[in-house]
Amino acid sequence: MSDPIEFYYDLSSPYGYIGAHLIEDVAARHEREVLWKPFMLGAVFKEEGTQPLVFYPKKGAYARHDMARTARLHGLPLNFPEKFPQLTVNAARIILWAGHQDQAERKRLSLAFYHGIFGEGHDISDKAVIRNICETHGIDWAEAEAAMADPAIKDQLKEETQAALDRGVFGAPYFIVGDEPFWGVDHLPQLEKWLESGGW
Amino acid sequence: MSDPIEFYYDLSSPYGYIGAHLIEDVAARHEREVLWKPFMLGAVFKEEGTQPLVFYPKKGAYARHDMARTARLHGLPLNFPEKFPQLTVNAARIILWAGHQDQAERKRLSLAFYHGIFGEGHDISDKAVIRNICETHGIDWAEAEAAMADPAIKDQLKEETQAALDRGVFGAPYFIVGDEPFWGVDHLPQLEKWLESGGW
Repeated sequence: MSDPIEFYYDLSSPYGYIGAHLIEDVAARHEREVLWKPFMLGAVFKEEGTQPLVFYPKKGAYARHDMARTARLHGLPLNFPEKFPQLTVNAARIILWAGHQDQAERKRLSLAFYHGIFGEGHDISDKAVIRNICETHGIDWAEAEAAMADPAIKDQLKEETQAALDRGVFGAPYFIVGDEPFWGVDHLPQLEKWLESGGW
Repeated sequence: MSDPIEFYYDLSSPYGYIGAHLIEDVAARHEREVLWKPFMLGAVFKEEGTQPLVFYPKKGAYARHDMARTARLHGLPLNFPEKFPQLTVNAARIILWAGHQDQAERKRLSLAFYHGIFGEGHDISDKAVIRNICETHGIDWAEAEAAMADPAIKDQLKEETQAALDRGVFGAPYFIVGDEPFWGVDHLPQLEKWLESGGW
């Protein structure tokens, strides 16, 4: 099988939510595996000297408008959460723990968390919200809560974030095929053209 | 005729160069006029608290790679100028002066300057380079030089930049149809879908 599609995302990103729904279709059309790689976007912003889109006055207003427009275009519900951006570190730890070596499980839980945040507008930094999503998806809450506090899982998320930085990731969603990087939902058509043609 | 496509650009932007070549085709397919609106991106960055893409460490490296890849995809030459970003204020003044109420002339000169900067890698802040492009394109140099120094033209560029800010423009290329904004070359497919469908 050819190179997989590395998909770098943070649960706090609305474009990540949209990208998570689109990337599997792109991958399926070209028989590629998707590697689901949650990381901490905040740490990357800090290193790059940037900040969340919505913090910029004009770019932020545009981004909110465009996120809603782009979600509608793809038939995805978008209920922008009142609290934004959200602290997603605990949810990311659960994804890494439950989907340790299981991409399908990472995908399943990521879409469940994304749906909670952007489909339903919940606050994923609230443990009661995480618990509800876990229990709805057959994840044992006592085990999940232990995993969130597990130093090994915490370290793993830090390492994954550092690995993303080392790969040049500066935003999300971010896709890499082989050594070819594609940033943003808007770049998925170019990524797909790349898969079709082998590059240009 | 339906709403025109307002095209906001700065000659210093490589994505603006690519967008300038693509927007007329989009407009022609949908029988829309393009309004060529040069402005000073630097002033907008200052107000927004951002900076040129290439100044960010990782995003800058990605942008250079993506600009070249996107230019190749569209069959456009891209010889990245050694000096970047460049001061484009004088060239923008000439566009406003020579193309005062003439969109075809604005387009013709903008593509000529863009070709000089990104097709051939010249430094457009150098008056000898501007002169050469003007003379190649039948613009009287004595008149152009006087226009560059004309307070009325200087004011006009400031006013155009303020008008862009007032319209919400925070980057370039930036397109507006009616009240619907589209930022970036990557968003042209969505703009085109908007023209086709009347919105969603």
